[in-house]
Amino acid sequence: MRKSIATVSVSGTLAEKLEAIAAAGFDGVEIFENDLLACPLSPEEARARAADLGLGIDLYQPFRDFEAVPAEVLARNLRRAEHKFRLMERLGADLLLVCSNVSPAAIDDDELAAEQLRLLAERAAEHGIRIAYEALAWGRHVNEYLHAWRIARLADHPNLGVCLDSFHILSRGSDPIGIEAIPGEKIFFLQLADAPLLAMDVLQWSRHYRCFPGQGNFDLAGLVASVRRTGYAGPLSLEVFNDVFRQASAERTALDGMRSLIALEQELDGTAQPAVPAGFAFAELADTGALGGVLSALGFARTGRHPTKPVELWEQGGARLLLNATGADPALVAIGLDSPDPAGAAKHAESLLSPVLPRERAPEEARLEAVAAPDGTEIFFCDDAWLTDFAPSGPVPGPVTGIDHVALTQPRHHFDEAELFYRSVLGLRPQESLELPDPYGLLRSKAMSGPGGAVRVVVNIAQVGADHLPWQHVALACDDVVAVARRLRREQPGLLLPIPGNYYDDLEARHEVDPELRDLGVLYDRDEHGEFLHVYTVTVGRVFFEIVQRIGGYEGYGAGNAPVRLAVQHARGH
Amino acid sequence: MRKSIATVSVSGTLAEKLEAIAAAGFDGVEIFENDLLACPLSPEEARARAADLGLGIDLYQPFRDFEAVPAEVLARNLRRAEHKFRLMERLGADLLLVCSNVSPAAIDDDELAAEQLRLLAERAAEHGIRIAYEALAWGRHVNEYLHAWRIARLADHPNLGVCLDSFHILSRGSDPIGIEAIPGEKIFFLQLADAPLLAMDVLQWSRHYRCFPGQGNFDLAGLVASVRRTGYAGPLSLEVFNDVFRQASAERTALDGMRSLIALEQELDGTAQPAVPAGFAFAELADTGALGGVLSALGFARTGRHPTKPVELWEQGGARLLLNATGADPALVAIGLDSPDPAGAAKHAESLLSPVLPRERAPEEARLEAVAAPDGTEIFFCDDAWLTDFAPSGPVPGPVTGIDHVALTQPRHHFDEAELFYRSVLGLRPQESLELPDPYGLLRSKAMSGPGGAVRVVVNIAQVGADHLPWQHVALACDDVVAVARRLRREQPGLLLPIPGNYYDDLEARHEVDPELRDLGVLYDRDEHGEFLHVYTVTVGRVFFEIVQRIGGYEGYGAGNAPVRLAVQHARGH
Repeated sequence: MRKSIATVSVSGTLAEKLEAIAAAGFDGVEIFENDLLACPLSPEEARARAADLGLGIDLYQPFRDFEAVPAEVLARNLRRAEHKFRLMERLGADLLLVCSNVSPAAIDDDELAAEQLRLLAERAAEHGIRIAYEALAWGRHVNEYLHAWRIARLADHPNLGVCLDSFHILSRGSDPIGIEAIPGEKIFFLQLADAPLLAMDVLQWSRHYRCFPGQGNFDLAGLVASVRRTGYAGPLSLEVFNDVFRQASAERTALDGMRSLIALEQELDGTAQPAVPAGFAFAELADTGALGGVLSALGFARTGRHPTKPVELWEQGGARLLLNATGADPALVAIGLDSPDPAGAAKHAESLLSPVLPRERAPEEARLEAVAAPDGTEIFFCDDAWLTDFAPSGPVPGPVTGIDHVALTQPRHHFDEAELFYRSVLGLRPQESLELPDPYGLLRSKAMSGPGGAVRVVVNIAQVGADHLPWQHVALACDDVVAVARRLRREQPGLLLPIPGNYYDDLEARHEVDPELRDLGVLYDRDEHGEFLHVYTVTVGRVFFEIVQRIGGYEGYGAGNAPVRLAVQHARGH
Repeated sequence: MRKSIATVSVSGTLAEKLEAIAAAGFDGVEIFENDLLACPLSPEEARARAADLGLGIDLYQPFRDFEAVPAEVLARNLRRAEHKFRLMERLGADLLLVCSNVSPAAIDDDELAAEQLRLLAERAAEHGIRIAYEALAWGRHVNEYLHAWRIARLADHPNLGVCLDSFHILSRGSDPIGIEAIPGEKIFFLQLADAPLLAMDVLQWSRHYRCFPGQGNFDLAGLVASVRRTGYAGPLSLEVFNDVFRQASAERTALDGMRSLIALEQELDGTAQPAVPAGFAFAELADTGALGGVLSALGFARTGRHPTKPVELWEQGGARLLLNATGADPALVAIGLDSPDPAGAAKHAESLLSPVLPRERAPEEARLEAVAAPDGTEIFFCDDAWLTDFAPSGPVPGPVTGIDHVALTQPRHHFDEAELFYRSVLGLRPQESLELPDPYGLLRSKAMSGPGGAVRVVVNIAQVGADHLPWQHVALACDDVVAVARRLRREQPGLLLPIPGNYYDDLEARHEVDPELRDLGVLYDRDEHGEFLHVYTVTVGRVFFEIVQRIGGYEGYGAGNAPVRLAVQHARGH
């Protein structure tokens, strides 16, 4: 389907917006009126600029507070409309979005609304312009899409149809199935936006928190499926108002919007083939030499080296970590994922506009398929071939059974993009979304996981004072954290993070727990499905390790304990 | 009255919070449980630390989901309470906040709630502890303060009283006058928070947007007046959950909290004597030499020089500007305000903890009283004496009649602080609070003005990408902007900001306006009270000038035109 986006969705001047939108491969744009008003280009120049970039102007918007008004207001509104029709002719736009009236002056009278909209459509027709009438979720009398359609049907003019906007429909909890009762040719336009579920005034929600499909909680695919069943042949057009997008790079936002539409189409066409990983092949850490000691202390051993790169393989039980002597401060730089079809996985990622990473390799080395995640973390799709490069010396016994999860701290501008990436590229599903207090701010955290918890990724943004570095960590799974902690506290003093006694005073007030947890500094959580025990190492550079044990069906991450961990980390000056 | 603050209100570790709170002059603290849990200090050590700093521990909080539960839950809850009583003994705290139950397991039965709270109070009494029962605004069955009091009265135990929290009361729109029906000795604690009026879920509103008294829209003075009429003798205690405060300096936040309580007390005692200015005496701009040309072009003339400092006086009509050759990039650095009693004004500002600025001066120079606003702008309180220093050469005729307003861009962390400062120190009142789209983000803007509009200050925060400098400007009043623009467009080409034709296409669609506005690039706004015409100069450094004309009772700032101005400024690379 044709793909469009409203200029309000990306940052910059109108000229910058158009360039970014064209570069991302869109077919058309909705011109958001304020973007034009503030623009030094004349309508003719803006039209030429769009045409030069290969962009159609699919819609001009919005025209407000037109219908169901007293006669004297109608005259003023028609005068206003004539001005806009002439502008649209200069701009080369032939579709005008008319939002349902929000003014206190609006009259609750469908027949009057229909009559006045019919008059507007007649005037529009003289200019070769069509009117798409849209129910705003906060419209004074018309705020349901079927109500808008009822009025348009009553008006019965070929130049009058409806505009459907997923936010206005789904934010009110309306069932989009009713769309299928609207003839496709009377749906003049389809605007798409997702949003997180927030308990706030719908106008504020709409103006500040919309996001691209796949970044929120709405079922966009279900809605678009209903629209397609009507025979609708117009564009899928993104219209997003988002405070973070407003401050971000237009190029990047436009590309992410395009990714969201491609993912949506793949889902609808049944061609989505996310590279669902079977598990973590490895986690790779940049290192200056400090991490080997921590891994040794944790019971890992170095089992191999890359033949041509300064990369070491460290193993324990089922967990494999790579230390890459880049000279950079310790940081989590790459994740290897077990993939049955690495080439196919990379191809799928590429179809979703993920940057494919060039791999320099010697002729005899294993070919590695990799793409960059939004925060720059490299994601490798691996079969077993990669291991042979390292010529590993054999298994290292130990309590660690594998990698339970990795936690990545995202820049704020990439948080929504990251959710879409992990969802569409890797087929992970969002679990919990949390806000955790940090001594110097808040940590926003979103956990995503694949089937059976084989791969879990936690993306965080740290909304803290500028002088606090965000951390990343690798969580290692084991079957007996208490035994591990017992050995480490005895043999490796200083390795595990100390946990304040006050934490245990509270824990013991809430649960009957083994007093040894306090002695060993093991943290504890439980939910209705099971229990969770975990310990943290001290931080090296930006990185630390966690050792976790899941009991029963516990699927969380001990989030309630994170503020304690953060406070201890800060207090230690890391 | 005794002044306290909850540790959750400021950032940092518990030790850092206590230090900042003591430094700001508070008498006591509420220990917020999570701050203690994450703290390496034992309760005994925390108690000693507070005592060393001269802080009493006035409250331990919160204890959740206790009352109106089935018997087996009650047993667990009493066990949990016993743990907390023992902890409080170690901490030296004798008052525990119990929030009304939010759990789905809570039973809607006041007698059961009273019976169980009475049991809790009996147990507490054994430890010398009292219970302050508080209705959370989102409590499951108990969410009104009089309902909490009804239950406490029914329970009838000397160790059980209520805690009143202004947010929980005023966020629900409850009338605080009912407080006067509660015996003062049964009000065990009073928590104060203000908040902006936001249409969102009350829990989210409470957790993220509370602010100090005088920074929001609640009538805190009215509520506290009612509390004082009961004979309540406990502390005024601030309890604020605010995402911005969490990231800010603890010292600064604590000081601002103290300022809010002092201002509140002054208001209640009738001792508030804000230095309500009669007008702008001057605005002072740092300069490298570039601004003189702009002022000349605008019709200003240099009329004097300071005898000992590199400061020039420029005048036109009733407007006086000072150019200070500091060598720093052009910026608005100070405001002079006409004050009948400069010394009294400075003393009042000092009573509200504003930093009084030291003035170096030669013996023969006028004494100037000045304080620093939260963003560092210097505020001078002036009678006519200051002018004599400059030995002005006499009036400069011109259309400019004075300074209409100044617009200052605040760092995000000082926005709430700025509102309290201008309100309490200068007696300005908040007018409109707006969010304006900027091509690279959002501009949040709050206008404040004194009686009759004699002094108007607009404080902005620019939520834009990091590489965009915030602007400041001085708006000059005149009686005929069209005439001014006519002359300037002719004689000073390039001085005024060009306004896109698209703006006028839209303006003419909405209003019947003189076509000359388009030719001259004059912006226009109207509301039900009157009209507003204005033009902007180009930007020099961080500064530009606006020339405005108010017609009729228009009290706004042409906010709807600001996005056009911002886009043009950005497009010009400023």
